[in-house]
Amino acid sequence: MNNQPTTTAIIVAAGRGTRMASHENKLFIKIHGRPVIAHTWAIFNNHPEIDHIVLVINNTLHDAFNDIAAIAGFKKSFSLVQGGNERQDSVWSGLNTVPESSDTVVIHDGARPLVSNTLISDTIHAAKTFGAAVAAQPVPDTIKESTDGNFISRHLERNTLWAVQTPQTFKITIIKQALSKVFESGLSVTDDTAACALIDQQVKLVESQSPNPKLTRPQDVEYITSLLNER
Amino acid sequence: MNNQPTTTAIIVAAGRGTRMASHENKLFIKIHGRPVIAHTWAIFNNHPEIDHIVLVINNTLHDAFNDIAAIAGFKKSFSLVQGGNERQDSVWSGLNTVPESSDTVVIHDGARPLVSNTLISDTIHAAKTFGAAVAAQPVPDTIKESTDGNFISRHLERNTLWAVQTPQTFKITIIKQALSKVFESGLSVTDDTAACALIDQQVKLVESQSPNPKLTRPQDVEYITSLLNER
Repeated sequence: MNNQPTTTAIIVAAGRGTRMASHENKLFIKIHGRPVIAHTWAIFNNHPEIDHIVLVINNTLHDAFNDIAAIAGFKKSFSLVQGGNERQDSVWSGLNTVPESSDTVVIHDGARPLVSNTLISDTIHAAKTFGAAVAAQPVPDTIKESTDGNFISRHLERNTLWAVQTPQTFKITIIKQALSKVFESGLSVTDDTAACALIDQQVKLVESQSPNPKLTRPQDVEYITSLLNER
Repeated sequence: MNNQPTTTAIIVAAGRGTRMASHENKLFIKIHGRPVIAHTWAIFNNHPEIDHIVLVINNTLHDAFNDIAAIAGFKKSFSLVQGGNERQDSVWSGLNTVPESSDTVVIHDGARPLVSNTLISDTIHAAKTFGAAVAAQPVPDTIKESTDGNFISRHLERNTLWAVQTPQTFKITIIKQALSKVFESGLSVTDDTAACALIDQQVKLVESQSPNPKLTRPQDVEYITSLLNER
């Protein structure tokens, strides 16, 4: 029997997608004949460093997710769990379903179907070393802070800014401790690395070497379609 | 004789476009049969609140710019001036060519051919009231600061962040004073509103209501083509 600790992926697939124009669930938009979520799932199904997959979903879509696995022939073990109101509730549900054998968790947006194998591996290795790691890219835009939404209050230095994506990868003990702190404090965090700040946990940036967009707005469909073409 | 102060547009069209894969000048990529810069220029040529246009260019392309005006039949008065090494040098060259009659200047990237008439007008009115104004959109991404490029050093509050674009519009006396301060201090600024911080000049954010992308990377061509289709 192999006693090496395992790695679990949590794919967050319970979002409401309020920025899409249609009421269609964006994860079920078909690109090259397959729902977006099937593209994302396939990457983790085929990745040699991922041992188990937890998909956090809306329970009304339970059968639809099982159908995807059957049609695509996904062989890697997976669990389906009901998501919560906020992203942090969904991640928490996922964490409570991770097998005991896992010490590392790779949290990924279902709506990012372009994540590369290398990026997943790089965040796993960085999380094993530093405790927490996040995929990120330098920000090409000029960004300003405005506390009142009317006037610029702070000019940010462009070369210090990183847009964080997923995977966000953690030692399980660390992300559980960080999210517990979030719930205790009654806070709301939009990404899991922000929770790490509450327990003074450092987060390593892992640069994405290829585009890793999230399907958020209607115009993203065309771009993601063309990128998936090139793969 | 009309003694109302006039408004001049400075179109910055001297960039090197180092993020494009080809060595082709991105402003001369043809979209719907017309160079990108001609699309941008046409908007200012037809805008009723713009009285004169200064195009900051590479002098080697002097004839090419005159040809564009002739072919498109642009009737509004314009000047062509040689750009400098840095964006701030180019803007300074442009400012020194603005007619004496103008009290307001609209600085715009040649590579943003989707700017709307309303956005131009809104920045002009805000600059007349507040001295300085900039087109901006709320940032959809989660942004972190990293001073060493390795670890996150600060988690930024997403709903306070704005990506600034152009037009950046100013009372001429104000932008001249701000840029003089930049040159005196030996600084380099990537956008003109950052210069305003040096003289404690407030900058009003003017929200872009429609996409106003800059042609920067090869994959932007397709997106901009589809947006120009819809206009």
